[in-house]
Amino acid sequence: MTQTATRPEFSVPATLPIHDDDAAVVDVAALGEQLLGRWADSRRAARALAADPSLHKAEGASCAEHRARCLDQLHLLVQNKAVHRAFPTELGGSDDHGGNVAGFEELVVADPSLQIKAGVQWGLFGAAVLHLGTEDHHHRWLPGIMNMEIPGCFAMTETGHGSDVSSIATTATFHPESEEFILHTPFRAAWKDYIGNAASDGKAAVVFAQLITRGVNHGVHALYVPLRDEKGNFLDGIGGEDDGLKGGLNGIDNGRLHFTQVRVPRENLLNRYGNVAADGTYTSPIESPGRRFFTMLGTLVQGRVSLDGAAVAASKLAMKTAIQYSVERRQFSTTSELSEEVLLDYQLHQRRLFPRLATTYAASFAHEELLAKFDGVFSGEHDTDEDRQDLETLAAALKPLSTWHALDTLQECREASGGAGFLTENRYTSLRADLDVYTTFEGDNNVLLQLVAKRLLADYAKEFQGVDFGVLARFVATQAADRTLHRTGLRRVLQTVVDTGSERKSAIALRDEGTQHELLCGRVDTMVGELAGELRGARKLPPAKAAKIFNQHQQELIQAARAHAELLQWEAFTAALAKTEDAGTRQVLTWLRDLFGLCLIEDNLGWYLMNGRLSAQRARTLGPYINRLLLKLRPHAVDLVNAFGYGPEHLRAAIATGAERERQEESRAYARIQRASHDAPLDEKILIARKAQTR
Amino acid sequence: MTQTATRPEFSVPATLPIHDDDAAVVDVAALGEQLLGRWADSRRAARALAADPSLHKAEGASCAEHRARCLDQLHLLVQNKAVHRAFPTELGGSDDHGGNVAGFEELVVADPSLQIKAGVQWGLFGAAVLHLGTEDHHHRWLPGIMNMEIPGCFAMTETGHGSDVSSIATTATFHPESEEFILHTPFRAAWKDYIGNAASDGKAAVVFAQLITRGVNHGVHALYVPLRDEKGNFLDGIGGEDDGLKGGLNGIDNGRLHFTQVRVPRENLLNRYGNVAADGTYTSPIESPGRRFFTMLGTLVQGRVSLDGAAVAASKLAMKTAIQYSVERRQFSTTSELSEEVLLDYQLHQRRLFPRLATTYAASFAHEELLAKFDGVFSGEHDTDEDRQDLETLAAALKPLSTWHALDTLQECREASGGAGFLTENRYTSLRADLDVYTTFEGDNNVLLQLVAKRLLADYAKEFQGVDFGVLARFVATQAADRTLHRTGLRRVLQTVVDTGSERKSAIALRDEGTQHELLCGRVDTMVGELAGELRGARKLPPAKAAKIFNQHQQELIQAARAHAELLQWEAFTAALAKTEDAGTRQVLTWLRDLFGLCLIEDNLGWYLMNGRLSAQRARTLGPYINRLLLKLRPHAVDLVNAFGYGPEHLRAAIATGAERERQEESRAYARIQRASHDAPLDEKILIARKAQTR
Repeated sequence: MTQTATRPEFSVPATLPIHDDDAAVVDVAALGEQLLGRWADSRRAARALAADPSLHKAEGASCAEHRARCLDQLHLLVQNKAVHRAFPTELGGSDDHGGNVAGFEELVVADPSLQIKAGVQWGLFGAAVLHLGTEDHHHRWLPGIMNMEIPGCFAMTETGHGSDVSSIATTATFHPESEEFILHTPFRAAWKDYIGNAASDGKAAVVFAQLITRGVNHGVHALYVPLRDEKGNFLDGIGGEDDGLKGGLNGIDNGRLHFTQVRVPRENLLNRYGNVAADGTYTSPIESPGRRFFTMLGTLVQGRVSLDGAAVAASKLAMKTAIQYSVERRQFSTTSELSEEVLLDYQLHQRRLFPRLATTYAASFAHEELLAKFDGVFSGEHDTDEDRQDLETLAAALKPLSTWHALDTLQECREASGGAGFLTENRYTSLRADLDVYTTFEGDNNVLLQLVAKRLLADYAKEFQGVDFGVLARFVATQAADRTLHRTGLRRVLQTVVDTGSERKSAIALRDEGTQHELLCGRVDTMVGELAGELRGARKLPPAKAAKIFNQHQQELIQAARAHAELLQWEAFTAALAKTEDAGTRQVLTWLRDLFGLCLIEDNLGWYLMNGRLSAQRARTLGPYINRLLLKLRPHAVDLVNAFGYGPEHLRAAIATGAERERQEESRAYARIQRASHDAPLDEKILIARKAQTR
Repeated sequence: MTQTATRPEFSVPATLPIHDDDAAVVDVAALGEQLLGRWADSRRAARALAADPSLHKAEGASCAEHRARCLDQLHLLVQNKAVHRAFPTELGGSDDHGGNVAGFEELVVADPSLQIKAGVQWGLFGAAVLHLGTEDHHHRWLPGIMNMEIPGCFAMTETGHGSDVSSIATTATFHPESEEFILHTPFRAAWKDYIGNAASDGKAAVVFAQLITRGVNHGVHALYVPLRDEKGNFLDGIGGEDDGLKGGLNGIDNGRLHFTQVRVPRENLLNRYGNVAADGTYTSPIESPGRRFFTMLGTLVQGRVSLDGAAVAASKLAMKTAIQYSVERRQFSTTSELSEEVLLDYQLHQRRLFPRLATTYAASFAHEELLAKFDGVFSGEHDTDEDRQDLETLAAALKPLSTWHALDTLQECREASGGAGFLTENRYTSLRADLDVYTTFEGDNNVLLQLVAKRLLADYAKEFQGVDFGVLARFVATQAADRTLHRTGLRRVLQTVVDTGSERKSAIALRDEGTQHELLCGRVDTMVGELAGELRGARKLPPAKAAKIFNQHQQELIQAARAHAELLQWEAFTAALAKTEDAGTRQVLTWLRDLFGLCLIEDNLGWYLMNGRLSAQRARTLGPYINRLLLKLRPHAVDLVNAFGYGPEHLRAAIATGAERERQEESRAYARIQRASHDAPLDEKILIARKAQTR
């Protein structure tokens, strides 16, 4: 079935006892451990490192200072052996791919520039040499890349082409007479652009170019190209410019590169998936050019996985700071003259923060599943073509949601903290500025969601080949449940729903796990089915007409992909509940998962009503039930953010230090004295004052 | 009726002929003139000034450099007589309040820091002396304030209290023996905070404090207080600190101030609305302390009005840049091998940009009405209590929507421009960082919307006093249409809807103006009515219980206020259509207004379906109709952003200069040569190449 293929294994949490226990208590330590996940050690080590002030972002530093600091920090990472886990054991690494990414993404807590610059060096530049190169390349360059003797670039994107990598215009033309490639930039739009380390630090680059030999273009390949001499000057034929200031991440020297008939030795072709012999003969272990291209770009998935994790980490920081502040900060007295309410007791504040907290949990659990999938593929344990495609689709589904969520969360937390939220000392604005570009680099979010949509359609099409429009439409409308049973994963869940009896369906409350799942699944299935129906006819039309029809449904394709990704998050959250052993914790997390699921349904309420999936009567219970969940979660909010495990050395936010509580207590003590001064004798006043100050 | 009171005058555009003329052409010059509005001259002068590079934000400057530059720029504004329009003619101003704000808000185009620092000096500090002080104060201080001899602060907000001004804790206690006020900060939370000009430039401040005389606290009043000596050192008893780096607006030296038993002469009380005689007797021309407080805070509305306008201006800049780029930038070829599509031909791109363009227009027309209302009150032409309350409510409704819209638009435009959007040279990120705080200063958006909701309920309550829950609920359900006829404005509109015959209602397409209006109005009416019903009982309960009930509906209060504000925008847009004389322009603007209205309905589709205002059948036509509107608007997109009238000197975005078009043409010419080289003789190749390059 459609989305099953790309879903992490999902199973219903059997028959765990869930009753609304209002006395439930969260086991913060155990939940913290669960959140740290399979690569807890790696995360702990990275967090310990990220606590080191010398790795922290120096707010207010000039661009030049920030760049210099970040470069120094990369050397510190090398000294601390923090970034080599993914490299081969024989070269000093530990062949640990999941642990590597887990550790990497935690660096965002120190400084997102540091995370991304490290990502450029080891996750892109180094990983390209590792994955696209062969043994000789590994021995020649990996040691220098690992120890930072060769700071380098991953030169793929061009000014003219970002998302559409296959259309890049830089050429590498093989000349058998000298056994060299001539690397060339034909026009301005083909300059490499936005390339980290290109503006100043990069000594070499993995350059992606159209490989041409014997007059035939074999598509995009990667070459290892030295860029600068010892003094930092560009080598002959190479030029570039600085991308200058950016909205954030100014610790990284992004820049542009161009090549004018640059001679590159044949041996510098990273030739694992495509080789050129001395006489110019092209050979590849992968026959299909499309599959070859897909395989070579496969290294990029690591970046998407770690952006997903870093976005989740940043969201956790923001949630912890905002919730901590909102249980200390008081504003407006509604119930008495003297005592103002803490912000988190306002419904609006709960409505602003708790759904985002729920999404942060969902994204965190989903990320853990993505990381497991990634580790399976990159370790070789589960490395079939299908595994790789599933990994690509899963990363393409989750990275957009988590990166948008991080920006949304940082902004809402910043606004919910008022003017204080705007001060750099509270970090929201700084993190938000840095994470902004996470939504468009390593795959533009909207482009990634279209890849997901294409995959959903392709899975669908395989099952329905040869079925024409009308037949398909009917089939979808009547057979959705059966259809989903043909694959794994979903089967048991849907069976459960069926078992509860569809005649009882209207009585199942929205809080019921099966109901939520059915509603979320049903939306994806229906949207994909309808789209497949609408688009099916297009395949027989001329390209221009087919493109027009696809374009007419682009918005719905994105919506379907998004709904699919949200379902994945919901399933990951639900799967995590099944692994939560402590009953109190499971109770509170269940409320939080319900909040996540019901907010998704509320966000798309129009669709559910329009398509008859919810009655107006049932829909009207949604808002009030969400509000009740907010009240249930209120006492556990601080526990839920404490379980993220970030300390003051990671938060580094003035308003999360308890300073606000001190100020409030001081002012309330003063108010008490003032009141006392009107109606109490002097001795009592002093007593009250002393009491108040020692509270 | 409920929202009528705070609505700008709204009238149906009579019977203007509107037919779907696909050949419609926008008269860009005339539309530009309409957008410039009543204070076009003031806007033109400000834009001419904002084009001066010496007033532009110096991106990448350090905080200290930026502050120094901004201070210098304020002197330039004085030299250019750009900021004195609101001051009295006798002191060199021109008593022109609307023109003053119109000119002010355009300064955001040069640098938001400049706009806000100027706002602090003349719109807050100077305006407080003008509006809260009396003649003697004006003559003593306004000349120095106007010419920047006295850079000053508006010291109202405290660390402990922002939105809840009445709870500030700084005290000004009158001592008749010395005829002085003793200004005092009792505890840390009472420090003045986030105060512009406080960290270094401010020589004086208008300080808000609880005025206490003869043992009675008369509430918040304002005093003129010298802060620093000639050398810039704090005077005795005054201290403070720098707020440090902020998420944006770093041209302004925000800081904290505190006062330890500071002696302030009696004459420094800005005593227009409250005076203390030499013997300590308090007098005020306004008897009610509540009304007095409201009146004194009335000066703040000017800030909200100008933030509304500045947010609209920033949205216009972003829309122009993003749309210009998206008709030049090409990515992915869907219809042919050689020609990639321009971004704006993708449905998704239209879906991302056009609804925001529509909202920008709606916000612009609504702002013009707000400005007229503001000018009416501040010029004294329409300055009743009701006028002032209407102005307050209108500003409180529009400022949240426009400032959130600006952030949303800047972000979407930035993402829609890909990696280029993240570069500072394209300005989105810089403007977004600066405008971030517009959502929470001069009135937190969510607090302002609650003020709007309170006003909606208060208007409602007047009509329904004594009606208990059950009766009211029935009344609301059945009598909504009649009820709205009791006041002005809406009457004709609803009559029009009635006239078309409610039995024909199901046949009225969503594109029908009356239908849109009915749906939008109906939502506000119903929400307010339901809330009034839910909350009515609360009035008889003890405060704590009443507060609890209010809190349980806080989210709905905000939603109702928001719906009301959106309706105001829709009405302003519709009123503007009636004034659009050119038929082609009116046609295109009508599509844009329809897009605005239908997207509002789509955003709240769940509500409309749940409440039976739309049938599922009708609702299903909404998405497709919106998509058709996108296609109709596509040919006019560039005209619609050109009408904003901002030139390259205002945009200052590298991607809006045509550079992308040049790059695209160069690369397409290259592709043509490449193709030709395979199948054409040499002469023809050269011909093609030449042709391509001279295109």
